Amino acid sequence: MRIDIITVLPELLKSPFEASILKRAIDNHLVEIHFHNLRDYTSDKYKSVDDYQFGGGAGMVMLIEPIDKCISKLREQRTYDEIIYMTPDGVTLNQQIANQISLCENIIILCGHYKGVDQRVRDMFVTKEISIGDYVLSGGELAAAVLCDAVIRLIPGVLGDETSALTDSFQDNLLAPPIYTRPREYKGYKVPEILFSGNFPEIEKWRDEQSYQRTKERRPDLLSDEH
Amino acid sequence: MRIDIITVLPELLKSPFEASILKRAIDNHLVEIHFHNLRDYTSDKYKSVDDYQFGGGAGMVMLIEPIDKCISKLREQRTYDEIIYMTPDGVTLNQQIANQISLCENIIILCGHYKGVDQRVRDMFVTKEISIGDYVLSGGELAAAVLCDAVIRLIPGVLGDETSALTDSFQDNLLAPPIYTRPREYKGYKVPEILFSGNFPEIEKWRDEQSYQRTKERRPDLLSDEH
Repeated sequence: MRIDIITVLPELLKSPFEASILKRAIDNHLVEIHFHNLRDYTSDKYKSVDDYQFGGGAGMVMLIEPIDKCISKLREQRTYDEIIYMTPDGVTLNQQIANQISLCENIIILCGHYKGVDQRVRDMFVTKEISIGDYVLSGGELAAAVLCDAVIRLIPGVLGDETSALTDSFQDNLLAPPIYTRPREYKGYKVPEILFSGNFPEIEKWRDEQSYQRTKERRPDLLSDEH
Repeated sequence: MRIDIITVLPELLKSPFEASILKRAIDNHLVEIHFHNLRDYTSDKYKSVDDYQFGGGAGMVMLIEPIDKCISKLREQRTYDEIIYMTPDGVTLNQQIANQISLCENIIILCGHYKGVDQRVRDMFVTKEISIGDYVLSGGELAAAVLCDAVIRLIPGVLGDETSALTDSFQDNLLAPPIYTRPREYKGYKVPEILFSGNFPEIEKWRDEQSYQRTKERRPDLLSDEH
């Protein structure tokens, strides 16, 4: 999978891709990440990427021209499955969307910054608008990193132990059960006895019950038919 | 505001705090961010921060002892309003929660990694569990960065233009209206004429209508009473 990220702040995105699972996926050639600095696609001497909004109001708007130039150049080189714009008014990311995107071959992720991009960028180029949640961030860069992380860890071979992703929260619309490790007792707090029984079918049953209980208490919406 | 972030991967978190709005907020002493590497709180020679889970199953679990030591040390130095654990089964972050947290003086954010933390950490120390959305990430680090960004930009003085945050999506349960900047026409795509009218009450009215329409089409749930 190849991911091209278009941004005015490539430096902000560096460290999340240089550590842990994302770094390993890149090192193992399971995914390619390319950053494109929008300032490299400007045509004026000030390298402007934004301007005041028409009609007045606070906040700068990202210009269409540098974005058009960058996307056009990338599209000359290969076909993209999706051109994704990270924006709080997009479709809310969930595990199903992450699963779908993990099957793409080439995607572009466009990070908004300042007040966002000129509406015409969305009308002309963007194929999918994604929000990571109902809150506002300084820019789309962290949202892009979150989307990449959620997607890349689903690519086969990225996680060391493949069963690990399958037992995560949301893969079956249930939250994960409580987990415990050493020591057996810590300052009076004990690990449930069932986990030492060696009876694996019973342990599985207990975990399923805990998952269901936790989901019912915390996120009953996940259990409803609508979801 | 002071934020202490406890993590096994402080290097992953570096760049988001070294650019743009977060950097400026730190430089202007509007917020202090301190990273704490859990490995500095281990007691064995391998600096273990995790172990296999009791009862079997894929994925490592973060040990309680180093977390307890780190939190205890921080608590000796000051009082914390919240000890927040980033986890997909927590309360889903939204703008209201971000607003509330932006009023805190001192908070600890604990990043889960691997399969998560020993359940007893949650029972003994954590006061708030927050999820940034219904998807699974490699770890809590990016989620912590997202929470910090959403919260810090709300602290008075952080954004250059204070009215800017107030007109963002979600602050009034409406999505933001479309925005436009130069040029007036781009490859046949025109900016709506109303924005050049100079009639600001009419422009405001148009924007309110666009906000409402967009919210109705994309996120009718935001308009319902339940929300």
